[in-house]
Amino acid sequence: MDKADVLVVGGGPAAVIAALTAKSNNPGKEVTMLRNYEDTPIPCGIPYVFGTLEEVKQNFMPDMPLEKAKIPVKVGQAASIDREKKICKTEAGDEIQYDRLIIATGSNVIIPKWLEGANLEGVYTIEKNNKKIAETKEALAKVKKVVVIGGGFIGVECADELNKAGKDVTIVEVLPHILSLAFDDEIAERAENTLKERGVKVAAGSGVKKITGDKKATGVVLNDGTALEADAVVLAMGYRPNSDIAKDAGLKLNDKGFIKVDEYMRTSDDSIFAAGDCAGKKDFNTKKLSMIMLASTATTEARIAGINVFNINPSFKNEGTLAVFATALGNKAYGVAGITEAAAKKEGIDIVTGCFEDVDRHPGKLPGASPLLVKLIVSKQEGVVIGGSVCGGPSVGEIVNIMGFMIQNKMNVKSIFTAQIGTHPLLTTAPTKYPLVKAAEIIVKSMKS
Amino acid sequence: MDKADVLVVGGGPAAVIAALTAKSNNPGKEVTMLRNYEDTPIPCGIPYVFGTLEEVKQNFMPDMPLEKAKIPVKVGQAASIDREKKICKTEAGDEIQYDRLIIATGSNVIIPKWLEGANLEGVYTIEKNNKKIAETKEALAKVKKVVVIGGGFIGVECADELNKAGKDVTIVEVLPHILSLAFDDEIAERAENTLKERGVKVAAGSGVKKITGDKKATGVVLNDGTALEADAVVLAMGYRPNSDIAKDAGLKLNDKGFIKVDEYMRTSDDSIFAAGDCAGKKDFNTKKLSMIMLASTATTEARIAGINVFNINPSFKNEGTLAVFATALGNKAYGVAGITEAAAKKEGIDIVTGCFEDVDRHPGKLPGASPLLVKLIVSKQEGVVIGGSVCGGPSVGEIVNIMGFMIQNKMNVKSIFTAQIGTHPLLTTAPTKYPLVKAAEIIVKSMKS
Repeated sequence: MDKADVLVVGGGPAAVIAALTAKSNNPGKEVTMLRNYEDTPIPCGIPYVFGTLEEVKQNFMPDMPLEKAKIPVKVGQAASIDREKKICKTEAGDEIQYDRLIIATGSNVIIPKWLEGANLEGVYTIEKNNKKIAETKEALAKVKKVVVIGGGFIGVECADELNKAGKDVTIVEVLPHILSLAFDDEIAERAENTLKERGVKVAAGSGVKKITGDKKATGVVLNDGTALEADAVVLAMGYRPNSDIAKDAGLKLNDKGFIKVDEYMRTSDDSIFAAGDCAGKKDFNTKKLSMIMLASTATTEARIAGINVFNINPSFKNEGTLAVFATALGNKAYGVAGITEAAAKKEGIDIVTGCFEDVDRHPGKLPGASPLLVKLIVSKQEGVVIGGSVCGGPSVGEIVNIMGFMIQNKMNVKSIFTAQIGTHPLLTTAPTKYPLVKAAEIIVKSMKS
Repeated sequence: MDKADVLVVGGGPAAVIAALTAKSNNPGKEVTMLRNYEDTPIPCGIPYVFGTLEEVKQNFMPDMPLEKAKIPVKVGQAASIDREKKICKTEAGDEIQYDRLIIATGSNVIIPKWLEGANLEGVYTIEKNNKKIAETKEALAKVKKVVVIGGGFIGVECADELNKAGKDVTIVEVLPHILSLAFDDEIAERAENTLKERGVKVAAGSGVKKITGDKKATGVVLNDGTALEADAVVLAMGYRPNSDIAKDAGLKLNDKGFIKVDEYMRTSDDSIFAAGDCAGKKDFNTKKLSMIMLASTATTEARIAGINVFNINPSFKNEGTLAVFATALGNKAYGVAGITEAAAKKEGIDIVTGCFEDVDRHPGKLPGASPLLVKLIVSKQEGVVIGGSVCGGPSVGEIVNIMGFMIQNKMNVKSIFTAQIGTHPLLTTAPTKYPLVKAAEIIVKSMKS
């Protein structure tokens, strides 16, 4: 029987980082990875396989860091866990004995049972499996009209990439706007307009009733009766945690079906940790269960699991999911961190918001300048930043990280008003109108009055 | 006699922000600006007038915010301050009575007395004066060979822009590398190599002895004997605080010649504040006097002066100059925040550093990907981030601001290791190798052992 001091089940970003962190902090221990496939895609890169990248291979997650750290990879589907004997069994019947187990089995695509036609030929899902991705890429290359169902990040990015690849694309979203779960309306509307300007048709506000076709999908019918023709349909209706193996082993799940973990990412069995999409999350601000599935969140959890796997370190705890993320449509980008205004109001949090818009170069006549809108959300009583969103050019990707650090540090909006920022004509807005500072100024002023 | 509740002397970013902030927080008060010229340049944009921008006008600081806030602008050179009578006199003999005065007179270009030939025709300085900038632009348009003396930010940016405009440019720096005061060697060397690749010749390590020529400059001779031909010479040897009017009024200056101010930006006279290049600065980390002159620092000081001008607010204090800045050479950018490794060692601070390099997209095959190097500097005993530097693509401009927030918040490196960051294929590195987190990981590990 194979043995490992630490067995990591899974192959995605959480699995890789959990394995690397466990090994790096315990160089004398054997850390082994058990994953389903020979190779793993970079999950966030998958949509870009359908337009920008030429080959699926360009989106493979490199194994080099694992090789360098001397972490062996076994390929096989984990089938069951015997917690008493500390053994993980694969579907092929292999057994691996572990001292510590880290479950990073990720998430599986949702195909709603109620959706008529979901199993027709020509209906594709975005799975974290290179072989499937390659098949989907090949199939979509041959069609013209594509309907993407689901206006979340994956759906929007796939729609935009397929449009870039020359397809006639319509995206269907049940909410009034695409990306409505992530962004407040004013940002979601901007993203939606950009997507439309780029040539993607948006059918929002009604939702899908069924996929039509005999053997092969030929169209989509919406709840409002609209019929859309389609040579292919892409389902992007979300993912659910892949927690079955944990449940079967008697580990506790939370009310959303994720593996229950504590702040150290320990499951209800002290020898077993979980990280990534399969692991339970609480929102940083509301402390309610969160269903956020992001590679970035997953890697943070994996670092915490990896560093605590043999010795609990009170310095390395998970204080809750911030949910920092961004997406890009051509040269325009949209990001959000922490709570949105809509979510804060729904939670009954007393907030003040401040928005400021400018250009991301100074003077604005410099080439590459793009409008930049920033919104900060602050708890009214304390003046603490609890959320933010931004839309602009590529600098959005790091501005949203600034917001993340503000929220994580529970920064007071007053200290942002007098924060020392760095600016450069070709890289940022002017120091006189740096938008995070200006948004803070608006909030400080409205809190005074 | 004219009267103003708040008189702001100066026209640059500090003056504008001080005036706007004072007015915004005291809407009932009259705030007046007294500045030397009809129009003011965006100071950080000046180098870009010589290459990227077509007209000097494109770099004018807009007066619209002042107009909107109903802040009248008087044009005139402030000549003296009568502190007893609370009157500011202009060179033209006008008098303005003030209740509060904010001095934001900026800095003047340094022309070293020892530099032979500095007064020859064809020798130009970079002054914050649109008329002078226009004259210099016009004159430089007619020449071929330009020697830029001084390898700080202004010198480097002017050299790069003049090169872009088709000139044959050599930059002279007395230190071993350009930008050596700002960056540790490994970053300064990269910037220097980029500048060379772009076609600028670099003569570093010797320094200028004299400018040659009869009536007109024809060349530059270095201390090591090297003779450089020149049709024009640009002096970029730094700036000194324009504090004469304060000194003449009996206000205290600090040992570096800046106007002495407290944490609220109050001078030695409680009715008079100072902000920007003319105002004294202490380094955030070392608490020693700093000579940093940055528009971004200036605007922070101006916000603090403006909000405290009538009522001191203990929430809005200047805790010292972080010095967050960045520059760009084509698609490459370089940034620094807080202390450098060299400066920390010189100060005797016990530090640990962590460097990590990757690409700023994921997968790295995506278009626009650029290498990205991050370095964090942490105080060894406490684990607190006190400095950082970064070189990479345009995202450097905001990554350096993340570092600034880390330093300002005295973040522990452990919390950066488990920070929740947001990533996107087209905007950032991968979540598995986000460089700030990876640099923190290296430091956390080295602090453990």
